Amino acid sequence: MKREIFLVSDGTGITAEKLGHSLLTQFQNIDFNQTTLPYVDTLDKADTALAHINEVNCSLNAKPIVFLTVINPILRKHIAQCQGTVIDLFGAFLKPLEEALETKSSYTIGLSHAMADEDRYNTRMDAVNYALVNDDGCGAHTYARADMIILGVSRSGKTPTCLYLALQFGIYAANYPFVSDDMPHLELPKFLSQHRKKLFGLTIDPKQLSQIRTERRPNSEYASIKQCQTEIKEIEALFKREKIPYLNSTTQSIEEISTKLIAKTDVKRRF
Amino acid sequence: MKREIFLVSDGTGITAEKLGHSLLTQFQNIDFNQTTLPYVDTLDKADTALAHINEVNCSLNAKPIVFLTVINPILRKHIAQCQGTVIDLFGAFLKPLEEALETKSSYTIGLSHAMADEDRYNTRMDAVNYALVNDDGCGAHTYARADMIILGVSRSGKTPTCLYLALQFGIYAANYPFVSDDMPHLELPKFLSQHRKKLFGLTIDPKQLSQIRTERRPNSEYASIKQCQTEIKEIEALFKREKIPYLNSTTQSIEEISTKLIAKTDVKRRF
Repeated sequence: MKREIFLVSDGTGITAEKLGHSLLTQFQNIDFNQTTLPYVDTLDKADTALAHINEVNCSLNAKPIVFLTVINPILRKHIAQCQGTVIDLFGAFLKPLEEALETKSSYTIGLSHAMADEDRYNTRMDAVNYALVNDDGCGAHTYARADMIILGVSRSGKTPTCLYLALQFGIYAANYPFVSDDMPHLELPKFLSQHRKKLFGLTIDPKQLSQIRTERRPNSEYASIKQCQTEIKEIEALFKREKIPYLNSTTQSIEEISTKLIAKTDVKRRF
Repeated sequence: MKREIFLVSDGTGITAEKLGHSLLTQFQNIDFNQTTLPYVDTLDKADTALAHINEVNCSLNAKPIVFLTVINPILRKHIAQCQGTVIDLFGAFLKPLEEALETKSSYTIGLSHAMADEDRYNTRMDAVNYALVNDDGCGAHTYARADMIILGVSRSGKTPTCLYLALQFGIYAANYPFVSDDMPHLELPKFLSQHRKKLFGLTIDPKQLSQIRTERRPNSEYASIKQCQTEIKEIEALFKREKIPYLNSTTQSIEEISTKLIAKTDVKRRF
């Protein structure tokens, strides 16, 4: 039987989920059943959440676990009466912060993922649009505006990385693919080499690349292990020859690729 | 003088940032200077982080605040010796969780945003690709595969919302724009009405729409307040007439739009 987990928030629930996920991944031998209850911002909704948690059928020693990111102390205490074990973010940390900052918390709901800053919102939208019109080498080539240009063969993870960099950090990331027609004797085109400091490479294990490509075009030359090996050999040689910093994306999530890329380069996050 | 904040993690730093952000937005009258120190996963790196924190020039009553998401207890205790106020995620919550779950934490580094599950990774990549080829009504129209089709006028937030839904939740979201040529007498085309249950609308305040469009095409008919008012009036009438659930995106972040959209519909998150 799966252990019941509730993620209760007065906002989007994203912080509660990150909090729960970080802690629960430390207990990988247990199966969890997660339920997010977002926008619990009134006493009525807190009542409903409380009832929901208490209705769960569980044995005495397998009570639900409740991750709570609710700022209003009255709602928070109300939900904390539930039958579960409560992990209360604001309950644990607001007090030491108030003491360190020598000021009271504003106890305002839903600030965490709210559109507090219009400039930030516009930058993010603009960075997403930038990534889209400069995706896959197509279109604009407005590389003067790029914070970063990501290079790699087809399906090595360039596009999701660029979009994540835009959404999460407001970074303007273009990407440019090298295709089999460019090989052998892969060279860096002038429109890229003139932005040398912005270049960053992605590589990937040829076997995984072949699997990913096979889902797209089964039994094609494009997806064959031989073709993938050739392309990866060529592109890694290019990265080394041109001294372009690069990462192997094989066993990494988009979050890991993006944050390691930032750590390895001088690119500045906008938030 | 800004208050110094450090976000120290053995992984990407994303959880530490979410944690810090959630708590610090409660203190809006204070200016913070944030530094993320990711991938602190060895004693050497913990030493460097500790030195970095202790080098900060601060007065006695304005010590740095350190948000810590480091799982290894030895590294964690090492960094916690710093001059700052330490908000220690694992230190506070692992013990109650171990007791509730009656099992020891695995104390494994960097699980939170690692590519633990290859299926999940592939779903996410696939959902991003789906959003891209079904963006802005162009291309594929493979709506049978969509979890959701987002409707709205140009620049009402459809594309970033679809990409966020894909990256964050593995939701396959297409989007379709209505343009001035469709108006007046806006109608739902058959290729959309046959997927009625998947439809969701976005609307926006005409003034904000006009501002956003003006940045793209200044002094155009497209960006004029009159045109924006007409388009919004038409599309809201369409949503009401066709009973399509919709949200006003005006003062909302992409996270809020996405999570409210999920709450208002039956769409299933894949993670």
